[in-house]
Amino acid sequence: MKAVALLSGGLDSTTSLAIAISLGYDVFPITFIYGQRHKKEIESAKKIAKYYKLKLKIIKVELNKIGGSALTDDYDVPSKENYNEIGDEIPITYVPARNTVFLSIALSYAEKIGAEKIFIGVNALDYSGYPDCRPEYIDEFNKLSRLATKVGVEGKPIEVVAPLLHMTKGEIIKKGLELNVPYELTWSCYNGREKACGACDSCLLRLKGFMEANAFDPIEYEKYPDFYKKYLDDKK
Amino acid sequence: MKAVALLSGGLDSTTSLAIAISLGYDVFPITFIYGQRHKKEIESAKKIAKYYKLKLKIIKVELNKIGGSALTDDYDVPSKENYNEIGDEIPITYVPARNTVFLSIALSYAEKIGAEKIFIGVNALDYSGYPDCRPEYIDEFNKLSRLATKVGVEGKPIEVVAPLLHMTKGEIIKKGLELNVPYELTWSCYNGREKACGACDSCLLRLKGFMEANAFDPIEYEKYPDFYKKYLDDKK
Repeated sequence: MKAVALLSGGLDSTTSLAIAISLGYDVFPITFIYGQRHKKEIESAKKIAKYYKLKLKIIKVELNKIGGSALTDDYDVPSKENYNEIGDEIPITYVPARNTVFLSIALSYAEKIGAEKIFIGVNALDYSGYPDCRPEYIDEFNKLSRLATKVGVEGKPIEVVAPLLHMTKGEIIKKGLELNVPYELTWSCYNGREKACGACDSCLLRLKGFMEANAFDPIEYEKYPDFYKKYLDDKK
Repeated sequence: MKAVALLSGGLDSTTSLAIAISLGYDVFPITFIYGQRHKKEIESAKKIAKYYKLKLKIIKVELNKIGGSALTDDYDVPSKENYNEIGDEIPITYVPARNTVFLSIALSYAEKIGAEKIFIGVNALDYSGYPDCRPEYIDEFNKLSRLATKVGVEGKPIEVVAPLLHMTKGEIIKKGLELNVPYELTWSCYNGREKACGACDSCLLRLKGFMEANAFDPIEYEKYPDFYKKYLDDKK
């Protein structure tokens, strides 16, 4: 029973991969070099694959030549003080159609190796408002999968599974800690400096998640946001 | 009114691009380096873009690192004598989920530049039996497009248009000749030698199309299949 797992090196995709392993799948992680401004994600993905003794497939796709996002271009990633500032609008870190590109390549890989499932760590609760992280998007991709591939036409479509879809960040981290996910190896920050910034959407959501899970984030931060400082103080 | 046009350098995609131009779109062609065994397609795409004075976007995506097709791997492309031998089965030239990968990247590009349409030269009549060339596949991709992008969520989804979908190869070429498509610049052969082989599925369908259109293929062939030889003799 094979499954492809999209692995960005972040907290969500690593937990999603750990869930696939815990369900008994023979897991084939895949990561993408798509012109991210920093390489820390890919380094994390490599460390995580090594930790789980899995062979990581690394595929280059030049989304940077298309542009249109603070994650691939020279925009500044916005700094915030609190997760309440994460709005309902689609933010400038949105890479046009990114998950569709990644899932399509994962679909190609899954068909090639005979995998039944594709695990993706998208999450529709504590997320940044990207359109391609919603349940209806995943459902629609699965409809496309049935028509897009040889195995789909033959009646054995490859299914995208999003185990974190309806979980809060706190629930994700609780689940990951149960599964002994090596969170010290993961990287979520939109900036690629030595330590996580503690001020981008991704850092804020991550720290809120650890707080909700009543746990501590093992990675280092340049500075903690006030809510997490208070949480640490309360725990002392 | 902008449109992205997928341009492989072949006969179909070039005709599809010419149709987009004839409909008044400001056309942005895109082509993919995906590990094709030969570079003749990409050279053709460059010549065609130059002919139409359009800027060609060239995007690398490493589908060759996934493999699974005679077009990217070291299989032999089968030689045939006649187009009747092109079967109903999905052939070994099928690249897993290729059109889904290409359309996804085109979707990303279209969203970035504010294009309303994506033109693709797929064709469900005289084709090689790929699952991702069928009308139901294109319809489903359009449903996904509405959910996958920021513009889709905002109510202005990018639509994939497949103007050749219900045309025979002969009808495609007739239409292209009306539009003065420079077929001498196109390349359809699955092999990448100096001249087209005249024996792969793609060459056979192309020559059958010129015959049906009562026209002559301007490119050179290593050898013509018998049916085309007979057609040339009858025309003398």
